[in-house]
Amino acid sequence: MKAEIISVGTEIIIGSTLNTNVQYITQRLSEIGIDVLFHTSVTDDPELLKDVVNIGLERVDLLIFTGGLGPTEDDMTKEAVSEILGLNLVLNSFLEANIKEYFNKMNRSMPSNNIKQAYLPEGSKFLINKIGTAPGIYIEKDNKVIILLPGPPKEMISMFNDQVVPLIKQNSIIKIKTINTIGIGESSLEMMLKDIIEEEKDFTIATYAQEGKVDIKIMAKGNDIEVIESNLDKIIKAIDNKASKYIYSYDNESIEEVVYKKLLEQNKKIAFCESCTGGLIASMFTRIPGASKVFDRCIVSYSNRSKIEELNIDEDILSKYGAVSEEIALEMAKGLLKKTGVDITLSTTGIAGPTGKTRENPIGLVYIGIATKDNSYVVKTTLSGDRDSIQNKAALIAFNELRKAL
Amino acid sequence: MKAEIISVGTEIIIGSTLNTNVQYITQRLSEIGIDVLFHTSVTDDPELLKDVVNIGLERVDLLIFTGGLGPTEDDMTKEAVSEILGLNLVLNSFLEANIKEYFNKMNRSMPSNNIKQAYLPEGSKFLINKIGTAPGIYIEKDNKVIILLPGPPKEMISMFNDQVVPLIKQNSIIKIKTINTIGIGESSLEMMLKDIIEEEKDFTIATYAQEGKVDIKIMAKGNDIEVIESNLDKIIKAIDNKASKYIYSYDNESIEEVVYKKLLEQNKKIAFCESCTGGLIASMFTRIPGASKVFDRCIVSYSNRSKIEELNIDEDILSKYGAVSEEIALEMAKGLLKKTGVDITLSTTGIAGPTGKTRENPIGLVYIGIATKDNSYVVKTTLSGDRDSIQNKAALIAFNELRKAL
Repeated sequence: MKAEIISVGTEIIIGSTLNTNVQYITQRLSEIGIDVLFHTSVTDDPELLKDVVNIGLERVDLLIFTGGLGPTEDDMTKEAVSEILGLNLVLNSFLEANIKEYFNKMNRSMPSNNIKQAYLPEGSKFLINKIGTAPGIYIEKDNKVIILLPGPPKEMISMFNDQVVPLIKQNSIIKIKTINTIGIGESSLEMMLKDIIEEEKDFTIATYAQEGKVDIKIMAKGNDIEVIESNLDKIIKAIDNKASKYIYSYDNESIEEVVYKKLLEQNKKIAFCESCTGGLIASMFTRIPGASKVFDRCIVSYSNRSKIEELNIDEDILSKYGAVSEEIALEMAKGLLKKTGVDITLSTTGIAGPTGKTRENPIGLVYIGIATKDNSYVVKTTLSGDRDSIQNKAALIAFNELRKAL
Repeated sequence: MKAEIISVGTEIIIGSTLNTNVQYITQRLSEIGIDVLFHTSVTDDPELLKDVVNIGLERVDLLIFTGGLGPTEDDMTKEAVSEILGLNLVLNSFLEANIKEYFNKMNRSMPSNNIKQAYLPEGSKFLINKIGTAPGIYIEKDNKVIILLPGPPKEMISMFNDQVVPLIKQNSIIKIKTINTIGIGESSLEMMLKDIIEEEKDFTIATYAQEGKVDIKIMAKGNDIEVIESNLDKIIKAIDNKASKYIYSYDNESIEEVVYKKLLEQNKKIAFCESCTGGLIASMFTRIPGASKVFDRCIVSYSNRSKIEELNIDEDILSKYGAVSEEIALEMAKGLLKKTGVDITLSTTGIAGPTGKTRENPIGLVYIGIATKDNSYVVKTTLSGDRDSIQNKAALIAFNELRKAL
């Protein structure tokens, strides 16, 4: 099956939004064995859009649109596609009720233009939008499949995974396994796995670097699920033999989820005190539903005074070693453990930049302290990148240290 | 002049590379008055690429290609374009010497396939590549302009700015202004601005929804910068008249930066206490370089015990009203103000979901408390979406309340 992905919207075409949707959809389609041949983006102009629909229908079997399903007048993907396919738009009462319900829940009346989103091309199926008001649309006509998805990435991704993938999945079986690592660079990891990558010709094994972590993806294709799975197991074992100390998940879990599950299993409570990461660690952790079962509190002690008041840091130690030091990272973690009585605490202190470096302390220097009743220690690391990057990487390394400690 | 940008390369089409080139070129073109109507990406297949060239020549005046100019066999943008335009490829001796010189400098002999890069379509101009070996190409034929640029972003950007912009600069000027709002939905905002949008035919005024906020974009085009700017001012005033209470920036600043600048100007210190937002507000705020100048600390008081210990919340009030209540939001903000002695504090408490709802408290209910020496109050809001969304929207609304309070 040959596919084209069409992004509709002036915000893409004038360059104010980076088109991440198309990359996401392409990756997912190739995982399920569908070849993407073209990406097209087009401005919010009905005539240009109709031309694009015609070109797409001529050259591929599967057309996936993103964007232009909103309630406003310049949203016209559905209208243009329906016109070219010769399908009338019909009011769907289920969708109408759904959209009204959405506004009811928020105690707001539905703006009149939102009713537009309850119309469907005749003979099409709708795809439920769990996050916003614009439903997706699935059309089969003349051996072509046409899918319309909303533009906001979250809405698109949720709809794509839950509803689109099952509808268009191909017959040959593709299994993808991801192994997640932290603490090793992409090229070092690739060198480490070179023999395996070259030996296993029936599988695609590739590394994908993200900020602060590297994923290993193994893609296996075939007709017999048992053969595929036993081969996959063999490869995973081989990778494990070489790189186990960097691996934190075999299942695309986030590092914070891995830490959360360990705490839950061990029935332990945790607290954080953050300086250079400024609340990011707590924020990542409290993204997890049910975090309250294991998470007690976090002190973002940004000022020196707050370190003294909240964590009982000795003023003499603070002025002797400075806030960014091994000693203070240790005192912070120990002070919080004593104050809260939880089972484990984690502290961060460092220089996220762009200012604040000194002769001894370069930008990117971060100390991570861990304290439990039995043990307390500090890990020192020096990270590259801008302020955002340093904060993100420090948070990942902090969670990885917690994983090792638990 | 109407333009299409065509990205050539399997790495784009399989999703392993995010296409940042196209965003860059589009932004620069619109700055110099060229309308981009289409983006197309196509895999490294000569037949598909030739079809794309034909489609582009039919629908626009300016075609800009990136990628596929390298020395390897799957680089064939130049070959495909030349074939469709009916132009022979001719060896250019200057380019040949240049490429040889490039390898000499690195004390390497030129690989034989690099000679390919010294061939040019007859009648075209070359564009010098200051970073790599692949020259760019500029072709004018039958009132169309066709420009071929290398794919690596650094090479493309340097060539685009130094050589392409002077070649294609238009006379008309385009100005884009963005107005940022929080607290109103996209369709309500569009209804509110309907008259202005319909009246101002010379300008494009459009709304763009993002999670928890909506941007208004005004695009003005013309030949006289003074006329454009005075008209823009008029429109901004008209929008301001209708929607001022939702507007937090005229300059694409983030809401947290707006709050940061106000604090800095007023020489005030702030502290947060977060429950349902779990550290997100502190984390967003400490992304700002220099946040330490105004930010004292944040208490993420997730457990009831931490609320009592850290914020001196009365246990009786807590058990009477529950942690998610107007009373507790108020007590949290006031308790933190008293404890820290800063000028302003903000608290959040709510139900981020997916669990935790009660008969009185639906998922998405959030209380935001603000306290200063003179005044303290609570704002109640009910937000839609999943856990992430509710946390994100609550943080934006919290910053917006701070903006209003300051």
